[in-house]
Amino acid sequence: MEISELGEFGLIDRLTKSIAFKNPSTILGVGDDAAVLDYGDREVLVTADLLLEGVHFDLRYVPLKHLGYKSAVVNFSDIYAMGGTPRQILVSLGVSSRFTVEHIEELYAGIRLACDVYGVDLVGGDTSASVTGLVINITCLGDVEKGKAWKRSGAQPTDLICVSGDLGAAYMGLQLLERENTVAAQSDKDFQPDFAGKEYILERQLKPEARRDVVEALRKENANPTSMIDVSDGLSSELLHLCKNSNVGCRVYEDKIPIDFQTALMAEEFNMNLVTAAMNGGEDYELLFTVPLVEKEKIDNIKGVSIIGYVTKPELGAMLVSRDSSEIQIKAQGWNSLS
Amino acid sequence: MEISELGEFGLIDRLTKSIAFKNPSTILGVGDDAAVLDYGDREVLVTADLLLEGVHFDLRYVPLKHLGYKSAVVNFSDIYAMGGTPRQILVSLGVSSRFTVEHIEELYAGIRLACDVYGVDLVGGDTSASVTGLVINITCLGDVEKGKAWKRSGAQPTDLICVSGDLGAAYMGLQLLERENTVAAQSDKDFQPDFAGKEYILERQLKPEARRDVVEALRKENANPTSMIDVSDGLSSELLHLCKNSNVGCRVYEDKIPIDFQTALMAEEFNMNLVTAAMNGGEDYELLFTVPLVEKEKIDNIKGVSIIGYVTKPELGAMLVSRDSSEIQIKAQGWNSLS
Repeated sequence: MEISELGEFGLIDRLTKSIAFKNPSTILGVGDDAAVLDYGDREVLVTADLLLEGVHFDLRYVPLKHLGYKSAVVNFSDIYAMGGTPRQILVSLGVSSRFTVEHIEELYAGIRLACDVYGVDLVGGDTSASVTGLVINITCLGDVEKGKAWKRSGAQPTDLICVSGDLGAAYMGLQLLERENTVAAQSDKDFQPDFAGKEYILERQLKPEARRDVVEALRKENANPTSMIDVSDGLSSELLHLCKNSNVGCRVYEDKIPIDFQTALMAEEFNMNLVTAAMNGGEDYELLFTVPLVEKEKIDNIKGVSIIGYVTKPELGAMLVSRDSSEIQIKAQGWNSLS
Repeated sequence: MEISELGEFGLIDRLTKSIAFKNPSTILGVGDDAAVLDYGDREVLVTADLLLEGVHFDLRYVPLKHLGYKSAVVNFSDIYAMGGTPRQILVSLGVSSRFTVEHIEELYAGIRLACDVYGVDLVGGDTSASVTGLVINITCLGDVEKGKAWKRSGAQPTDLICVSGDLGAAYMGLQLLERENTVAAQSDKDFQPDFAGKEYILERQLKPEARRDVVEALRKENANPTSMIDVSDGLSSELLHLCKNSNVGCRVYEDKIPIDFQTALMAEEFNMNLVTAAMNGGEDYELLFTVPLVEKEKIDNIKGVSIIGYVTKPELGAMLVSRDSSEIQIKAQGWNSLS
């Protein structure tokens, strides 16, 4: 169906009808000048992410439903990285004329699936024509106990540096998708990409998850992260953010960086440096954080969290310690669309 | 200066440094995964607007500073239309390579001027490259006393329908800008558009204001609007929203619709129907609201608010009553980028 058959308000009605609220903080959702929310005595967290076709995603190999899911999850990840719980999102969409109602429903199906999985309410947004590509801006609100947000600015020398999950997989998944897409474009139409044994890195790229489980485990252990950030632009970039905001340095050990074997195999196949991929790949949506040294045992109790180094005084700089114990200055070579 | 010289984080630093917070509800602003806000025991309002080059604005005749100002103000208008006070915004920008750092600073100067005028804090957002045109998404948060938000859904039969200011001027300003732009394109480079005597309609298009004063006056008079919406897509469209959300009908009198004389003169010059322009023009950012009949005196006390009709039972439909007392069904012919 052509979107023009429904118009803006018809499309919004169709996309947002049957939304049932999951959070008591959601008082009024889609359909007024603004949504109305009540957070009681908790603090409000708010973050926004802009995703543009041709810059952040390529619809030749990203299904719209996956794109919707990922667009929402990357915002939830920012709320978790503050130690909070995502509660509501607003979705702004700019849609060019090549999209049908069914396309937008696919995208929304992904967004709504993510909302269901993470217990988030869709409460508003804006829907508009676009003369160019697809534009998605998602704003996410969440809450946290007063004064308990985990910022980027509290890391102290001797703190342990921790990261959840593994790194570099989403980046290698992207390399694989781009290669197969190029091959497909040059092959006859019966070409079938071979993704066998590479499901994990593909899923990391196409359908990442936010680490709610890690935040919950940290709260359960009564751990007190002194700083936290989510890994969206690459470990190097995020380490430098923590160091800058906390006015500290760091030592991170190359051999401690968690990497999945599919990531390693793929890097070998592409003849790429594995550590570079893990340090600069981006889109991992893992949590990078620091805890006081005395809390090492609490971290050891949490499955899937690795201690990769420690915080130093600022004058010692931010260094990667290689396998042969030489120190290499960490530089932000990760994702930066404006460089 | 090329944006690539600064990169994303350098640009954000440059645009957001020296931001001093004006609201006690702003706890933490730009520079973390999310902003942190504390609204005490008040309800939170949140709204988002997506503005796309070629759809919502044309940079051939809209200065970037004006565009920034307007982008922020249209969001404040949504918060006022709920009876709230705007407190914070997040700005997501997609910037194509033809823009320099100075261009983006101009845009930001307009956004920050609007924030200063309306007492709003800029607390976050996202900045990215765009392969196409300029993309702006602004999310605005505000607050309101618990249970006191003015929704679209409370209008009752016999309520008076009121509108602030005058209508159609922004639309006529746009017609004028487009005409002069077309003439300029066909003339030699010394062509100077003649805007004398048309300053008001130009300002309404290029630098609209949100009606904070009307909300304050209503609160001061202890008025109790039963419904409210801001006029962004045109009076017809907004009347139908109020009728639909409140399940009522309406009678609006053609001769009561407030129109400035510059708007009327311009409509004559363009040989356009004046009422059509006022009903469907859009971008007025005036407040359309209903109050119980018994509050007529309160409305009479507020300068610049016109009573244009009354609310009826739903089965009587939404009608415009013309000067010769005939009834014409109101249809949404205003701005709808997706039709």
